[in-house]
Amino acid sequence: MTKQRYDDQHTASYGSWVEGDLIAHETSEWQDIKLIRTEAHGVVMLIDDVLMLSEDTHHVYHEHMVHLTLSCIENPKSVLVIGGGDGGTVTELAKYPGIERIVLAELDEAVVRVSEQYLPELTAGLKDPRTEVRIGDGAAYLAEQTGAFDAIIIDSTDVCEEAHAGAQTANPLVTDEFYDNIRKAMKPGGVTCQMLGSPTFYTNGMSLMYHRLADLFTHFKPFLMPCPFYISGDWCGGIFSDDNSLEPKYEHLPADKLVYFNMDIAKGALALPNNVRRMMK
Amino acid sequence: MTKQRYDDQHTASYGSWVEGDLIAHETSEWQDIKLIRTEAHGVVMLIDDVLMLSEDTHHVYHEHMVHLTLSCIENPKSVLVIGGGDGGTVTELAKYPGIERIVLAELDEAVVRVSEQYLPELTAGLKDPRTEVRIGDGAAYLAEQTGAFDAIIIDSTDVCEEAHAGAQTANPLVTDEFYDNIRKAMKPGGVTCQMLGSPTFYTNGMSLMYHRLADLFTHFKPFLMPCPFYISGDWCGGIFSDDNSLEPKYEHLPADKLVYFNMDIAKGALALPNNVRRMMK
Repeated sequence: MTKQRYDDQHTASYGSWVEGDLIAHETSEWQDIKLIRTEAHGVVMLIDDVLMLSEDTHHVYHEHMVHLTLSCIENPKSVLVIGGGDGGTVTELAKYPGIERIVLAELDEAVVRVSEQYLPELTAGLKDPRTEVRIGDGAAYLAEQTGAFDAIIIDSTDVCEEAHAGAQTANPLVTDEFYDNIRKAMKPGGVTCQMLGSPTFYTNGMSLMYHRLADLFTHFKPFLMPCPFYISGDWCGGIFSDDNSLEPKYEHLPADKLVYFNMDIAKGALALPNNVRRMMK
Repeated sequence: MTKQRYDDQHTASYGSWVEGDLIAHETSEWQDIKLIRTEAHGVVMLIDDVLMLSEDTHHVYHEHMVHLTLSCIENPKSVLVIGGGDGGTVTELAKYPGIERIVLAELDEAVVRVSEQYLPELTAGLKDPRTEVRIGDGAAYLAEQTGAFDAIIIDSTDVCEEAHAGAQTANPLVTDEFYDNIRKAMKPGGVTCQMLGSPTFYTNGMSLMYHRLADLFTHFKPFLMPCPFYISGDWCGGIFSDDNSLEPKYEHLPADKLVYFNMDIAKGALALPNNVRRMMK
């Protein structure tokens, strides 16, 4: 194979690139998926030419999403993941012996299939007997659930651009109906986590998302996390709930299995910089 | 002018790029300096084709270096900056009314000159009457100082690669003599801050730097900070001292003049991920 360079363009003036061998390329009904084997960073995934993960750094993002959320829940038993077809989020969840049920609702079977083939470590949790993989519309699956989940993790592509455009119906993961269904699907004390974007690079969209979630839910906290391989150093998710105060206080982390995350990091992630504080006013 | 793309390569497999108009290009005795005017991020500086700063995001790095350090010092009056010719660090320091003396020791006059011409906001502090700009060898200047500074900020290019190679004499900013002179130049209770690198991308070099500084000084704390426009999300500096416990407890920040940093961020920056904790063992 011949090494090739793949560009990931974020603004008119800035982007990143990755160089390696294209080992899988699928054009599904939904998106373009490329897996690149690199010399320095293992396998890297691009979806629609945006860097999604690298084998050597994905843990930072996956660990924040899962363990920050679960450290706010006393005794998490059942978790729904919407998106997350690369398996990384499910694999983190499977590290908790107390979890009884993990549902992965992923739209695109191609993401799951190529990940299982080329990213065995990320997808290990998909083979866990507690895991149900449901290929199909995650928003539709969610709509059928009532009081079923302690945690819901929306591990999708960034939603802040849609919010910015005001086209709330363009992305089914940011409609009012979707958030109503989130509320209905959660157990008492349940917490939802949603990937949002970068407050540095998507200032307007992020500001709108912050206000939206703060208006819709009694409790909402954005959190920042480093994301090697994404542009910007201050990538951001949000946790929200109507009846959970979102304090990371339950120290049931599978600590010896974590590459990055710990309870100090949980508190640090919730420390908000001035620019984000101002966006939330 | 015609827009051009400039690559910033970090590993065999990964890098970033910036596109814009080349508005200044100097090849000094020491390095190659390019300033690019971009559509989305203002003026961007590359030194030896590595992205150093963008006008729209530089504050994250400069604010961490300066304000984390100063929040550990009760009453900072005099500060030495080694490197930092773009002016960003000095400009942050000039925001403290209590500071009486700021010395910038920068090797390369070309960096200062082009920054003053094209980055007026960053270089504002260079015109402050409390600032002395000394073009020349910062390590040599340092060697002449005794008990002169409450804080020393080493705002140079990354030193972790030299540490990794074991070539301690290659970079005058990591020799034993340099650190001895740091100790001698600081006032009682003084704190030094040094830019280190990324623990994700320079694992071995960072591990060596951590051990080195922890061996040389009674107190040493690495801190992580997002650095938009640098690769990796977990860029890292270190603060160290023989007689200051490095707690960010003095709330004398010029808070209304800061884009990003606050006391919550100070504590969050010192929360270390597992991978860094392991490197320090």
